[in-house]
Amino acid sequence: MAPPLPLLMLLLAAVVLAAPAATEGMAFAAASNATTTSPVTGKLNVHLVPHSHDDVGWLKTVDQYFVGSNNSIQGACVLNTLDSVVDALARDPARKFVVVEQAFFQRWWAEKSPTIQAIVHKLVDSGQLEFINGGWCMHDEAAVHYIDMIDQTTLGHRMIKKQFNKTPRAGWQIDPFGHSAVQAYLLGAELGFDSVHFARIDYQDRAKRKADKGLEVIWRGSRTFGSSSQIFTNAFPVHYSPPDGFGFEVLDENIIPVQDDLSLFDYNVEERVNDFVAAAIAQANVTRTNHIMWTMGDDFNYQYAESWFRNMDKLIQHVNKDGRVHALYSTPSIYTDAKHASNESWPVKYDDHFPYADSTNAYWTGYFTSRPTFKRYVRAYSGYYLAARQIEFLVGKSSSGLFTSSLEDAMGIAQHHDAVSGTAKQHTTDDYSKRIALGASKVEKGVNTALTCLTSSNRTFMSVKFNQCPLLNLSYCPSTEETNSATKSLVIVAYNPLGWERSDFIRVPVNDENLTVKSSDGTIVESQLVEVDNVTGNLRQLYVKAYLGITPDKTPKYWLVFQASVPPMGWDSYYISRGTREGYNSTVSTMVSPSNDTIEVGPGPLKVSFSSTSGQLKRIFNSISGVDLPIQQSFLWYRSSEGDAMDSQASGAYIFRPDGNTPTTVSSSVVPLKVIRGPLVDEVHQQFSSWIYQITRLYKNKEHAEVEYTIGPVPVDDDVGKEVITRLTANMVTNSTFYTDSNARDFIKRVRNYREDWDLQVTQPVAGNYYPVNLGVYVADGKYELSVLVDRAVGASSIQDGQLEIMLHRRLLKDDARGVGEPLDEIVCVDKDCEGLTARGTYYVNVEKLGHGAHWRRTYGQQVYSPFLLAFTHEEETSWKSYSVPKASMMDANYSLPDNVAIITLQNLDDGTTLLRLAHLFQAAEDPQYSVLTKVDLRKVFAKRTIKEFTETNLSANQKKSEMKKLNWKVVGETENGPSPIKGGPVDSQALVVELGPMEIRTFLLKF
Amino acid sequence: MAPPLPLLMLLLAAVVLAAPAATEGMAFAAASNATTTSPVTGKLNVHLVPHSHDDVGWLKTVDQYFVGSNNSIQGACVLNTLDSVVDALARDPARKFVVVEQAFFQRWWAEKSPTIQAIVHKLVDSGQLEFINGGWCMHDEAAVHYIDMIDQTTLGHRMIKKQFNKTPRAGWQIDPFGHSAVQAYLLGAELGFDSVHFARIDYQDRAKRKADKGLEVIWRGSRTFGSSSQIFTNAFPVHYSPPDGFGFEVLDENIIPVQDDLSLFDYNVEERVNDFVAAAIAQANVTRTNHIMWTMGDDFNYQYAESWFRNMDKLIQHVNKDGRVHALYSTPSIYTDAKHASNESWPVKYDDHFPYADSTNAYWTGYFTSRPTFKRYVRAYSGYYLAARQIEFLVGKSSSGLFTSSLEDAMGIAQHHDAVSGTAKQHTTDDYSKRIALGASKVEKGVNTALTCLTSSNRTFMSVKFNQCPLLNLSYCPSTEETNSATKSLVIVAYNPLGWERSDFIRVPVNDENLTVKSSDGTIVESQLVEVDNVTGNLRQLYVKAYLGITPDKTPKYWLVFQASVPPMGWDSYYISRGTREGYNSTVSTMVSPSNDTIEVGPGPLKVSFSSTSGQLKRIFNSISGVDLPIQQSFLWYRSSEGDAMDSQASGAYIFRPDGNTPTTVSSSVVPLKVIRGPLVDEVHQQFSSWIYQITRLYKNKEHAEVEYTIGPVPVDDDVGKEVITRLTANMVTNSTFYTDSNARDFIKRVRNYREDWDLQVTQPVAGNYYPVNLGVYVADGKYELSVLVDRAVGASSIQDGQLEIMLHRRLLKDDARGVGEPLDEIVCVDKDCEGLTARGTYYVNVEKLGHGAHWRRTYGQQVYSPFLLAFTHEEETSWKSYSVPKASMMDANYSLPDNVAIITLQNLDDGTTLLRLAHLFQAAEDPQYSVLTKVDLRKVFAKRTIKEFTETNLSANQKKSEMKKLNWKVVGETENGPSPIKGGPVDSQALVVELGPMEIRTFLLKF
Repeated sequence: MAPPLPLLMLLLAAVVLAAPAATEGMAFAAASNATTTSPVTGKLNVHLVPHSHDDVGWLKTVDQYFVGSNNSIQGACVLNTLDSVVDALARDPARKFVVVEQAFFQRWWAEKSPTIQAIVHKLVDSGQLEFINGGWCMHDEAAVHYIDMIDQTTLGHRMIKKQFNKTPRAGWQIDPFGHSAVQAYLLGAELGFDSVHFARIDYQDRAKRKADKGLEVIWRGSRTFGSSSQIFTNAFPVHYSPPDGFGFEVLDENIIPVQDDLSLFDYNVEERVNDFVAAAIAQANVTRTNHIMWTMGDDFNYQYAESWFRNMDKLIQHVNKDGRVHALYSTPSIYTDAKHASNESWPVKYDDHFPYADSTNAYWTGYFTSRPTFKRYVRAYSGYYLAARQIEFLVGKSSSGLFTSSLEDAMGIAQHHDAVSGTAKQHTTDDYSKRIALGASKVEKGVNTALTCLTSSNRTFMSVKFNQCPLLNLSYCPSTEETNSATKSLVIVAYNPLGWERSDFIRVPVNDENLTVKSSDGTIVESQLVEVDNVTGNLRQLYVKAYLGITPDKTPKYWLVFQASVPPMGWDSYYISRGTREGYNSTVSTMVSPSNDTIEVGPGPLKVSFSSTSGQLKRIFNSISGVDLPIQQSFLWYRSSEGDAMDSQASGAYIFRPDGNTPTTVSSSVVPLKVIRGPLVDEVHQQFSSWIYQITRLYKNKEHAEVEYTIGPVPVDDDVGKEVITRLTANMVTNSTFYTDSNARDFIKRVRNYREDWDLQVTQPVAGNYYPVNLGVYVADGKYELSVLVDRAVGASSIQDGQLEIMLHRRLLKDDARGVGEPLDEIVCVDKDCEGLTARGTYYVNVEKLGHGAHWRRTYGQQVYSPFLLAFTHEEETSWKSYSVPKASMMDANYSLPDNVAIITLQNLDDGTTLLRLAHLFQAAEDPQYSVLTKVDLRKVFAKRTIKEFTETNLSANQKKSEMKKLNWKVVGETENGPSPIKGGPVDSQALVVELGPMEIRTFLLKF
Repeated sequence: MAPPLPLLMLLLAAVVLAAPAATEGMAFAAASNATTTSPVTGKLNVHLVPHSHDDVGWLKTVDQYFVGSNNSIQGACVLNTLDSVVDALARDPARKFVVVEQAFFQRWWAEKSPTIQAIVHKLVDSGQLEFINGGWCMHDEAAVHYIDMIDQTTLGHRMIKKQFNKTPRAGWQIDPFGHSAVQAYLLGAELGFDSVHFARIDYQDRAKRKADKGLEVIWRGSRTFGSSSQIFTNAFPVHYSPPDGFGFEVLDENIIPVQDDLSLFDYNVEERVNDFVAAAIAQANVTRTNHIMWTMGDDFNYQYAESWFRNMDKLIQHVNKDGRVHALYSTPSIYTDAKHASNESWPVKYDDHFPYADSTNAYWTGYFTSRPTFKRYVRAYSGYYLAARQIEFLVGKSSSGLFTSSLEDAMGIAQHHDAVSGTAKQHTTDDYSKRIALGASKVEKGVNTALTCLTSSNRTFMSVKFNQCPLLNLSYCPSTEETNSATKSLVIVAYNPLGWERSDFIRVPVNDENLTVKSSDGTIVESQLVEVDNVTGNLRQLYVKAYLGITPDKTPKYWLVFQASVPPMGWDSYYISRGTREGYNSTVSTMVSPSNDTIEVGPGPLKVSFSSTSGQLKRIFNSISGVDLPIQQSFLWYRSSEGDAMDSQASGAYIFRPDGNTPTTVSSSVVPLKVIRGPLVDEVHQQFSSWIYQITRLYKNKEHAEVEYTIGPVPVDDDVGKEVITRLTANMVTNSTFYTDSNARDFIKRVRNYREDWDLQVTQPVAGNYYPVNLGVYVADGKYELSVLVDRAVGASSIQDGQLEIMLHRRLLKDDARGVGEPLDEIVCVDKDCEGLTARGTYYVNVEKLGHGAHWRRTYGQQVYSPFLLAFTHEEETSWKSYSVPKASMMDANYSLPDNVAIITLQNLDDGTTLLRLAHLFQAAEDPQYSVLTKVDLRKVFAKRTIKEFTETNLSANQKKSEMKKLNWKVVGETENGPSPIKGGPVDSQALVVELGPMEIRTFLLKF
């Protein structure tokens, strides 16, 4: 029916030919619109930055957002945005657009035809389409680990580099709920970004900055690096949407089209131009230089891009004809260049933008803890993913590609500011978990296969099948529960992802009493059996069914505990066999009946005392350091506000708003106590209430207490939302001061009821003092440091001197009106029986002399993040030994990394290179011994391989370190830069010794 | 900043190059989608017809819809649709789209660049973009005059022809609320359409047609023409939207995207294909042949066309891969060709689809009357526009273009099925009125200038300035009210647009008592002065202020009435001068005090009797025909239902639902009566209530009564909506039968509580018997015909034998839930004082012997439609005569059209040709004398010009009559066509005599 279209082909070409060509750096007019692309001097320049903020999951799942399903929740389809933006850009070379989230862009790109891809290439090359931020998602900044931030950014940046040979120049964290120091310097300056842009800073801070024209600053996020790692930072005056009346989203109710046809009854050019000029001048009044940015977009906007561009074209045309101000299509890079060219001096900003409040009673500090089990899930697989990539590196290339890539998308999107933050809807959160679970199960298979290869001395005997136990914390591990056969032993292979030899305790559930543990060299290893408590048994029955859909066998009787020593970046094997051999078998723990008022526990140097009458913690004593600290610990809950007469603000997924009363102590009377002793570990079990159970473990040789809490279901039959904390109260004078980490990296000093940048009006004395914690929190007085490390992101504070409190779980009944539209009321269901979600986790408590806490925090923190990776099999012990490599290390036998260095990335890339990142673990001046320049000898690290090529790069490995460009900025009141920080020098390609200064992270691409 | 884009240019071309070329008539696959464009045999073919239903004003104004403003009312922007459809079609040559409303398309087209226009040209040439319907709007079919239907269709069709050389092949009246016979044959077959398609037919009718597979029929709308003017008609089984779940409008809540990427968690190809096949089979079960149509669109859809096409591409691909049914992009033309090729026999349908009901109590018969003053406004300017175009033709070409084109857009959109129908929101209705007012004021100026030219014998004296008086019916006419100066007379030029000499009474307001009227030949013309009544005076004060914003002088004292005789398509002048000259001056009417029970009025042959005690009409007697009919007349109102316990349906703008009670008679007791007599006219004034005033006028020489009613403000302080009727009750046995016109053209027999097509279940004995009336309504018994002609569209019925009732005004307090979202409660405001809208109008009553009513109905009906066009000036009588042409006719002095022919179009076109339409005014067998072949001698019609070129065309003048193609259709139970109707033969280009058979309309393009 349709005749051939040869003329159409020519005409489509003519569409573009009709637009005049542009010369770089020169303003040019588009065919019909007379829009220009360059700022002009002597006028206020309004930089219109067309963008769409596309959450990688929030109210809908990432798939639903991409394809545009489930629109009854939110009308949003990223396909529409990207398809229509490309059309709109191709129509007029003056138009620009910035693309942010690579999780969406890459799946769109993958399904486009080569022709569309070619058009996009040209749009990118011409600067019409610019990638900014460029990570897989716009990650959260409070509840994410810096290694995850780096990984997800690297994933996106390397894709952009590979496909377009482009390196994003601007950070674009417009939506995260507060901003971290690590974001500023590490995921900013160290990426090679010139600028970072965002909308959300504290409302009091913003008011002051508007008055002072201080919204735009030079941010020095690192106290260690100072001006050597600074970034131009643009905090928006209102939000990331356009000024009122200048949004042009298709079908939007409030759209006011520019009507410049005189025959239209509602011709409105003068009115629109006047409104534009007024809005521009209002913004100029709070902004330095004659450049202001308008963020022309909003959440999932540009569903039909032409609706925006058609109106922006006309605005630019008529505003510039009017001449009072100058409007132009721009990007954050163009804007930053214009700012830089202005030669203005900028205020300096240190530390971070936490906590974030948008009004008097709206501190966004709830999400530091929201969805604690999901936060743990993400953190656990963060460490696992790191270890798996090491194992993948060790086993070498496979023809079937990189098995660890199965987790990269899932882990990437999990870092999104509505994912790990706990602020997505439940179904979306379930989707994130499902993606991690699916990816993890593939990686697990890959690791099992890799371990088979690695532990096989002879490739013909590669019949060993390994298993792993992701639900080990529930005492669920079929491989270890299974009765050993007469001939075969349970073989446990423990992989150590750290660069140090380490000794850690392994705990696996078993059903036998008579078990012997041997190490790979045949030595008997002391072991202990600890009865599995009922709380764990009940959790196991419920959650194995809920998570795996299977009804588990009866709860195993014991935990088998033994200490494993594993070489750096290597493995060792342990054999557990049945049989009664006096003196060789595991010791069954004994139950202690307290005989006097205080009961002291701990088989090693750390002794912890409890009151046997109240059941409460009394004191911690370290016999090595001599530290002896009276300390109490209790669980309490804040009653969540549901809003009150003055302010309807409720506590919710984002916002922590306690109702203002003193928190309620869980079990104010006697806490039932059960004490178990043994040669390796003492355990103190405390039943604080029907829904809070805590086990404090003191291990032989360990100078900290490991505290495992089980909280839930949080009761809400009283219709009261509860935010549950653990609080340590020590006899210390801490001067309102405490320290929390930034993304598990730098520790930042926090002073209660105080902000360095403005005169804080205290409206929320609790919520307003909460800070995000990923690694740990500590307080210090003149003598001691009391430190707590955590196994996931949490919110924490010190509300009274000597106190540390950590929020561990939240169950809320109201939504806090920030968009998610659901109360944070997590439940778990089996069939149709549902109950509140139980959160189980661990924190670690250490007391040291003042100035000596950092070593434990840094090194043990690394162990918490990177536990042993355990794999299980059953083999006949002697035959296993005959054909296996039961113990090995990647490194030279006598080599180990210094305590202040970790390998945070070792990863084969799909192009055959290997990505290596080394991180110094200490800040400047944090520790007299470790906050120094340190060295890593790569030839010893990679003892069995030869490095053929060696390139140092920026953090995301998309450009050579030597080619990174840096803009210099003038700073108010500063004539010259401060002292240079200690940093490692260039690496000699023969010696291959890498130096690292405090906090330094160095990134390399290697070929072996 | 942006480098030149030479590569992009090539690549955009490549987008199209990548799509394989198509060969005419052959199926071809698109680049990536494997969609096909041809039906296949042996399978059920699902014709996907992508369309957007774009109301030319409804909830928003036409401008607001076009630019997409006022989106809080409705998210709709036609710019988006057309822009994005063109992009989407250009992307894949398999895609198709139909464009309907030219009012939108043409303004879009006018603002597009030549490059985009060129792309559209190619899309049209290839058949990807097809124009259907193609009028300026999708006109209403109940409340429109056939001349307006022709005009607005011609406007669109000629634009399409001019720009694209295309003639639309399909009628697409998908939304109008019922369908007229005239639509089927005249605005269907006679346009050259092969098919017409729509959604709305009676729900009982639809149920039966689904059961009988009778939704698709051959419709013979004309009883005169029968099979010679038939059309294939497709009534949709549900609505004009797609089957549930197959809409893909951007951001739609219910969108279910086709997810065919296996990596998507919601991959749904099998489910979507199964749903598609199921929906197709369900429709096939009620449809003849293996072709079904899916209307892929809805109101203002395709805001982002790619959202639809992306999903339809995938459906076509996967459904055809599945193979159970065959899906294809199609258009109504392709669909009709496939139907035709199937060689199926189709049921026949006669007459029309009125009234339309969508459920038991939802008869869409209210809109026949809704907004009576707007309906009159449209009708008045319809006649005016016709006359003005004649005058423009007479005066000849002007360098400044065609002044009458100022009304073409306004009159075109006023015919829209939510405009003249009275079903748009108030603000939109105001917008329609404003457009007509603006257009009319320009045309008025043009007419004034033209009259100056025409009446000037010498071009050097063209100083005469004419005025016109659009508010004459309110007694507001400054030109005539103004006191004549001593030297200058009031000159009234009356233009007669009819092809016959005619004598009609002119009435103008004056303030003098002593006036003399002279005709152009100097003869004294008898005149009469009638006092302006208070009701008119009060309306004048309010509405002149409300409409013109000025406070008028005091009400003029008299109407000056005189009879003017004007030659065919010509004018005459009358001089009104002051001075007391006995016997020459106007006669002041006398007030009659009734002396006995009956008072008979009428200066001419028609005598009408009223009871002087009750004030009611009693009898009509025609002394010429001898007809003497006892008859009563009263005003009543139906109480509007607000819904009841059984059914919440309220009466509203669309729906007439009386509450079921007997209507209330307005003024059941004595009606105050005032009788005025004079030599030319007798008037009977009846005050039925405070809000209903009626004047019955009996003119000398006229055989009908002219009844002017003034209704309003309809009181609603009792919270009762009221639907006001006038009812004539004659002593006649009418056998449930009455006759109403179809768009002022064919009369159709109506039988109360009966439908020819199905066994009617009577649920609404009043509303279900209402029919639209544009020309008139009549009943007949064995002796007489009682006829009423109307001055605008109304609803009418005969609820009891011998009765005729006409609904004249409606004031309602509830919305009827069909979309408009407002109660039909029209008000008029001056400053902030508002009151219900008063409607003033006229109907005409005639009684004739059986079989003799047609002549009056047809000829006087034409006079009602085409009154004198009056223009006023003041000149010294003698000097005026010296330089003017006071009287003239276009025609040969001795020529006049026969009574059964009217010139319904005489119009200069912008290409220099003249459009002429001649219409035979009688149906076959309607009148023994006039329902015959008749002749028009064009050489005499255009006496002063020579016709150089002469082409007969189809109705809309977009194709030569000789080249019109007609499909033959097989009809159930019919082996051969019936007798051929009488039609005129070919026109000899020398003789130029045009023959016309009954009801024939012939269209010509002429060059002089």
